[in-house]
Amino acid sequence: MSGENIKEFCGVFGIYNHPQAAYVTQLGLFALQHRGEEAAGICTSDGNDLYIYKSMGLVGDALPTERLANLKGHIAIGHTRYSTTGSSKLINAQPYRVDYSRGQVAVAHNGNLVNAQLLRSELEAYGSIFGSTMDSEIFVHLIAKPSYRNCEEAVVESVKRVEGAYSLVILNETQLIGVRDPYGFRPLCFGKLGESYVLASESCAFDLIEAEYIRDVEPGEVIVIDEKGVRSHFPFGESKRRKAQCIFEHVYFSRPDSLVFGDTVGLVREKMGMNLAKEHPANADLVIPVPDSGNFAAMGFSKASGISLGHGFTRNHYIGRTFINPVQEARSFKVKIKINPIRKVVEGKRIVVVDDSIVRGNTAKSRVSLLRRAGAREVHMRISCPPHISPCYYGIDFPSKEELLACNKSMEEIKKFLDVDSLGYLSLEGMLAATSKGPHEFCTACFTGNYPTEIPDGGDKFKLEKKRKR
Amino acid sequence: MSGENIKEFCGVFGIYNHPQAAYVTQLGLFALQHRGEEAAGICTSDGNDLYIYKSMGLVGDALPTERLANLKGHIAIGHTRYSTTGSSKLINAQPYRVDYSRGQVAVAHNGNLVNAQLLRSELEAYGSIFGSTMDSEIFVHLIAKPSYRNCEEAVVESVKRVEGAYSLVILNETQLIGVRDPYGFRPLCFGKLGESYVLASESCAFDLIEAEYIRDVEPGEVIVIDEKGVRSHFPFGESKRRKAQCIFEHVYFSRPDSLVFGDTVGLVREKMGMNLAKEHPANADLVIPVPDSGNFAAMGFSKASGISLGHGFTRNHYIGRTFINPVQEARSFKVKIKINPIRKVVEGKRIVVVDDSIVRGNTAKSRVSLLRRAGAREVHMRISCPPHISPCYYGIDFPSKEELLACNKSMEEIKKFLDVDSLGYLSLEGMLAATSKGPHEFCTACFTGNYPTEIPDGGDKFKLEKKRKR
Amino acid sequence: MSGENIKEFCGVFGIYNHPQAAYVTQLGLFALQHRGEEAAGICTSDGNDLYIYKSMGLVGDALPTERLANLKGHIAIGHTRYSTTGSSKLINAQPYRVDYSRGQVAVAHNGNLVNAQLLRSELEAYGSIFGSTMDSEIFVHLIAKPSYRNCEEAVVESVKRVEGAYSLVILNETQLIGVRDPYGFRPLCFGKLGESYVLASESCAFDLIEAEYIRDVEPGEVIVIDEKGVRSHFPFGESKRRKAQCIFEHVYFSRPDSLVFGDTVGLVREKMGMNLAKEHPANADLVIPVPDSGNFAAMGFSKASGISLGHGFTRNHYIGRTFINPVQEARSFKVKIKINPIRKVVEGKRIVVVDDSIVRGNTAKSRVSLLRRAGAREVHMRISCPPHISPCYYGIDFPSKEELLACNKSMEEIKKFLDVDSLGYLSLEGMLAATSKGPHEFCTACFTGNYPTEIPDGGDKFKLEKKRKR
Amino acid sequence: MSGENIKEFCGVFGIYNHPQAAYVTQLGLFALQHRGEEAAGICTSDGNDLYIYKSMGLVGDALPTERLANLKGHIAIGHTRYSTTGSSKLINAQPYRVDYSRGQVAVAHNGNLVNAQLLRSELEAYGSIFGSTMDSEIFVHLIAKPSYRNCEEAVVESVKRVEGAYSLVILNETQLIGVRDPYGFRPLCFGKLGESYVLASESCAFDLIEAEYIRDVEPGEVIVIDEKGVRSHFPFGESKRRKAQCIFEHVYFSRPDSLVFGDTVGLVREKMGMNLAKEHPANADLVIPVPDSGNFAAMGFSKASGISLGHGFTRNHYIGRTFINPVQEARSFKVKIKINPIRKVVEGKRIVVVDDSIVRGNTAKSRVSLLRRAGAREVHMRISCPPHISPCYYGIDFPSKEELLACNKSMEEIKKFLDVDSLGYLSLEGMLAATSKGPHEFCTACFTGNYPTEIPDGGDKFKLEKKRKR
Repeated sequence: MSGENIKEFCGVFGIYNHPQAAYVTQLGLFALQHRGEEAAGICTSDGNDLYIYKSMGLVGDALPTERLANLKGHIAIGHTRYSTTGSSKLINAQPYRVDYSRGQVAVAHNGNLVNAQLLRSELEAYGSIFGSTMDSEIFVHLIAKPSYRNCEEAVVESVKRVEGAYSLVILNETQLIGVRDPYGFRPLCFGKLGESYVLASESCAFDLIEAEYIRDVEPGEVIVIDEKGVRSHFPFGESKRRKAQCIFEHVYFSRPDSLVFGDTVGLVREKMGMNLAKEHPANADLVIPVPDSGNFAAMGFSKASGISLGHGFTRNHYIGRTFINPVQEARSFKVKIKINPIRKVVEGKRIVVVDDSIVRGNTAKSRVSLLRRAGAREVHMRISCPPHISPCYYGIDFPSKEELLACNKSMEEIKKFLDVDSLGYLSLEGMLAATSKGPHEFCTACFTGNYPTEIPDGGDKFKLEKKRKR
Repeated sequence: MSGENIKEFCGVFGIYNHPQAAYVTQLGLFALQHRGEEAAGICTSDGNDLYIYKSMGLVGDALPTERLANLKGHIAIGHTRYSTTGSSKLINAQPYRVDYSRGQVAVAHNGNLVNAQLLRSELEAYGSIFGSTMDSEIFVHLIAKPSYRNCEEAVVESVKRVEGAYSLVILNETQLIGVRDPYGFRPLCFGKLGESYVLASESCAFDLIEAEYIRDVEPGEVIVIDEKGVRSHFPFGESKRRKAQCIFEHVYFSRPDSLVFGDTVGLVREKMGMNLAKEHPANADLVIPVPDSGNFAAMGFSKASGISLGHGFTRNHYIGRTFINPVQEARSFKVKIKINPIRKVVEGKRIVVVDDSIVRGNTAKSRVSLLRRAGAREVHMRISCPPHISPCYYGIDFPSKEELLACNKSMEEIKKFLDVDSLGYLSLEGMLAATSKGPHEFCTACFTGNYPTEIPDGGDKFKLEKKRKR
Repeated sequence: MSGENIKEFCGVFGIYNHPQAAYVTQLGLFALQHRGEEAAGICTSDGNDLYIYKSMGLVGDALPTERLANLKGHIAIGHTRYSTTGSSKLINAQPYRVDYSRGQVAVAHNGNLVNAQLLRSELEAYGSIFGSTMDSEIFVHLIAKPSYRNCEEAVVESVKRVEGAYSLVILNETQLIGVRDPYGFRPLCFGKLGESYVLASESCAFDLIEAEYIRDVEPGEVIVIDEKGVRSHFPFGESKRRKAQCIFEHVYFSRPDSLVFGDTVGLVREKMGMNLAKEHPANADLVIPVPDSGNFAAMGFSKASGISLGHGFTRNHYIGRTFINPVQEARSFKVKIKINPIRKVVEGKRIVVVDDSIVRGNTAKSRVSLLRRAGAREVHMRISCPPHISPCYYGIDFPSKEELLACNKSMEEIKKFLDVDSLGYLSLEGMLAATSKGPHEFCTACFTGNYPTEIPDGGDKFKLEKKRKR
Repeated sequence: MSGENIKEFCGVFGIYNHPQAAYVTQLGLFALQHRGEEAAGICTSDGNDLYIYKSMGLVGDALPTERLANLKGHIAIGHTRYSTTGSSKLINAQPYRVDYSRGQVAVAHNGNLVNAQLLRSELEAYGSIFGSTMDSEIFVHLIAKPSYRNCEEAVVESVKRVEGAYSLVILNETQLIGVRDPYGFRPLCFGKLGESYVLASESCAFDLIEAEYIRDVEPGEVIVIDEKGVRSHFPFGESKRRKAQCIFEHVYFSRPDSLVFGDTVGLVREKMGMNLAKEHPANADLVIPVPDSGNFAAMGFSKASGISLGHGFTRNHYIGRTFINPVQEARSFKVKIKINPIRKVVEGKRIVVVDDSIVRGNTAKSRVSLLRRAGAREVHMRISCPPHISPCYYGIDFPSKEELLACNKSMEEIKKFLDVDSLGYLSLEGMLAATSKGPHEFCTACFTGNYPTEIPDGGDKFKLEKKRKR
């Protein structure tokens, strides 16, 4: 699916008690770059004041090292963003920092609230004003309520009001606070680096800074780090805490070297590929991955099927200014500029091409066409997850139902649309069996339509967002 | 005083019912560029939604024409900013736009509130959060209170809560609203351009877009422009409405071609120069202005004294990246890079040098030194306003009392410090007599210490701002 | 004429024996900014190697201080450019530095050669290649001829081959060389700063760095500065050395505070204004300058006529991104954005408006229109030089004959075109009498068509340049 | 070797007879981006004039589409650059365009001349000046010699003077010319796109624009394309034409999907990996590639050895501003920010890590250390080419002998330095046997010290370049 238009969401990072907190945060965000390429920001505290810098672009451009000197202090949080709600403007970059009655607070958020519109209307009814179109601003308004004794209490009480997916890092003058919603939709890890404590969306951020992974922040946990040490609150009763971790983190989003929800992502993907080979074997000469999204699943498919693995596509890794060039009339150009088939590898062969998912299907169709023009005799497509049929309300920006390929076509129609000789999607069971956890620990709503939370407004996601879109 | 560090404040502009509202606003802001060089912004409405763009820098850089296409709609407000309160960051650029219970609203503000800290504390006590450090954000919180029926009523009621100097342009989905505080500290003009109505800090903005000046918005007036036409509210009783217009707009800030408080600024300055010549005649060969700040007063001085006028200084008008160059050890460099005396004009002459004001005195001192090195036989300095002795709480960012030259030195000491042969400041009466209005219509607090409003906290301006400074 | 499209040409600067040569050169170029706003460059030598940096834009942008650290050494030359020949690309920025048989050399040039095409063709016939479209590259090819013993000899011999206007600063590993053509078309000054020697197009560059003006480099002089001291060569016999200094430097180009060809520019302009008043008196109430180009002449006119001087126009000094704004339909917009008449000053008055020159006339016409709309009763235009009727081959980029107002219209037609009540141009004699030098020391070709040198190709300047234009 | 400091050299592209020649060239250069990331340029001809634009940076930044509109015409050449000689400044970007006696010509060059200094000295002795420090400028001087009848003859004669490696694309007003040196060191392909002809360093550029590969330009061939059609010259006698194609193009430089010297690069690499497994088997659990440089060889090693393949490293593909961050004290940081081992994949395993080459060895050493810290039980390193022991004079910028790991250490010492359990380099024979061509068709000088041409100055490459380094 590399190349398709699923917007990745966000990565968060936090560190407590490091003399170069802003610099470590910049590195942590670099490791989380794949979770958001649109904007990045860091907010620090020196014990008295908060300092912030955020900007549009990739971490290396948005947060150049020379700008970090002003971000004083030993506590920091950071954010890389791909908008899920809120249009992509600087005003919507995070962390979101404000002044309020008890001082200053900054929040960085990964996820998406399902009752955002409701809460916002309620807050506005009491006179609140909103400077951004982000869900995340709602947390700050809730925390700022004057009735709480301090920020810690405010956080613990506030999260009870919100419904949906949220992994948060929160900074005030003296504390770093991590929060994960009671379903645990989005990952959040807790670690240690010498005398410092760290929080990050994925463990790959710990590897880069050579921090040690301790454990996941638990679903429904509020973890508070300050000079008294580390302590946890569990604002939600047992009944509300049931795991519904996003299986799509394993399928697509997280980095393969990250430990997510207790499993190494790359190995889960390899297992998915193995299960896929068992469910949908193919009579073929060569298994090739769509680089890099299908790399692990293709390896698993090859191992389980015994069909040898090949590099049938070359990927051009240069990113930069997007090309808009009048010569690119052909629809397939956007695909070709990223991957090119190797004729001598695929010519005359029966090819199994493995990828992690199909959303709209245009990219997949173009790739099949490239393989055929390069001489492939047969093209068998294998996808390491089930067909997408439902929108996600928890932070993934899938296209609308109208645009989802599997929503509107039978399996036979999809096969014809893609122009493949055979097509196989991994089953729900096969996908869930690839992790070491029980199937009930995961949210599979985008494949099944079974949402772990109530969805207001009858599930019309787009109606909810309309008012805020600008 | 050109070259000294008085921070100019802000310029505001608004237009109702123009098919190219954003473009006209850009031009209006360009004419108001002298009122704020740090940042600029425009917010428009198409009747349903508000669109905003703001950025750091001069209007031509901050608001390039190609960015205006997205600013849809026929109503617009704009702002050029020089921070008075609120540090100079993009987060403090204006207009300030928010969502709230009744929809959207944007505010652009010229002035400074004296009860900002009080209001802010009160709002925070009820749970309000502040995303900027600007006074102007307070207006938005007040307007957003849910108890009002509509934005118009909200504005009329809100301004009763604030104390201090404010000329505002306010935009909601369907209305352009102008407000001037009951003292009328800052100017605000009302005009017409074909079928459109316009508001601007100074009439020079009307000249550029070829709009017709109709009248000043009156002190204490709220002027509302919408599809029903133009109507005014006067929220304040007669007792509260007493003119205290900033005389320093005439002395220094406003453009000479503007009609401000009913008089043409350049002609007021020329009259000040004439009065100055009468009060402080000089036995000299040549009158020279400090370009361009002393141009009009010098001409008046020359006319009244009969001493011929000369161009003794050449001014280098190139602005751009500030030079920080290790060769510039000499203290006088910052002065020299802007103005250079013409030796053949001043050599051997007894010179009267006329400027509009002296604040710290370093710049004036350097200029005297330049003239002496260029061979001037005598240097007589004449200043077209009285000595500055008190801080301004209404939007002008004078230095602290410690730094104000006249606060700490006798007239004899100042003369010695500047190394001039004679020194004359225009008297309060002489200054006020230069306008066509009565002396009681002006605020002269910076010269007299008599403030038209109460000053909280015993007048310690800097204590007030400390909390907010970051 | 401020605002009209005469392209200014170039400024050159050089310094020998200064520990911060590049930094001093940056300042010198800043003082010469008015001679070229398109590009700037500096080349230095540390005794062994040459270091260069050049870039597009104003000095402050093109040569930021942080880029100067790499420009090592104690000798430097610099250049600000407005293209006369050679289109405005970085490839045509100067200094022009090359490697050749004897080492390295860099040249910066102000002026224009009349036999450039001839020399270029001849050099190409021997196999020379040209990387730029600048005249200045020809000097380097001539200097590089292997037959000379050293760079000094090469310069002395090379200049004998070129015809036209050139003031040069040349840098090799160990020497700074200044050259002025035998007619002295363009200025070049020689000065001293402590133990350093300096060269500059105008003395205002010396004022800024506090160097002492010693004398002009003489027409036909090659001045060589190295560790042995300062020495001069005069490659041309007496017969070839006859002064033909550009009178238009006094009228328009040079800064008023500069000493050019032995006179202070501002005072020459004032004298021109006085002569103008005598030749073309006016029955009027007020003399107003076009700011800033007419400032000195207007003052002279006022003094000689006894008609009082006024500031009728306000000038907006903000430069920056050029505005291209769809609202600016009106032709007069480009004029209005720079100057605005003050209604109260001009209303009902008979106005004498004084400017330095008229080229195409559109700008002048727009200004008259502005004055009339502001209520001027009569407008009498006075110009402090004669009408332009011929192209300049010596470095000034006037428009073609077809576009020159005075080339194609009788005095009566011009008056009608400009819509003025009366019109007066200063006579040739009146203009020349404003300097302290004899009239035979100046080139007046643009007013008379009498060229001091032969013009190849029958004077078709545009044919000459066609081949090179790209 | 991805991550090591071998500077890649250059890519060239040319197209004849395409209405959007500049746009197609931009795309072609994007496909050749891996051959040079420092600068890029395009020069076009419309039959009469040449138009050029070049700039620093990656193709997408250096040649944005909006700049291409000025590059008129139907013929174009382009260049992506990584400096081999000539420091990395804009002045050294290519194509190099000049005017000379017969008109205009532009050259883009991939390779390195061995007699550059000699030719340059000779040209300078005749008065030539050099504006850049590039070898490529020499071609232009030679072509510009006035004795030839036309550009075509000039190219045919000029190449006889130069010694070394060069694949050239040359553009004049009406012709596109391709040249490959008689040894064929660097690749150059010829193809067709509809009615247009194309030249490119590698065939992957043809794939992107959907052109058809026809054949390689032959060693010693000058191919001329103009309105008369396509014709070839062979300036060199049979004796001088002997193939010495760079085997390192197959090992490292070229893209795996390119057809280079008649073989598909990726498949040659896979074969190298297979031969490597036969020569240096390992008793291990898992083969892992260094991504992406070792991908194909590792696959070949896995196939030949039967040891299963795994993704042991994750690569972070985000490029951008280089990080210089004070926290990165650890030497291994530069390695870690690019690749991260997956603990669960390597833990407890005996690992064969396969890469294409080792130059200095620091990067390889760091990777071994990463694997050990991630729990690898044994690390067996396999390299798909022989040890590098000699400098390249033909366009590859290896470090000096002092820095080459294999030059200074025995195999045992290298093993110890890298801290590996075993180490195997592919033999010369094994490497050459991986192509379908005879071993005598390749240059292997960097592995053997046997240079196909004479090397002036006793082979001291660095002495040669010293004079020119700035």
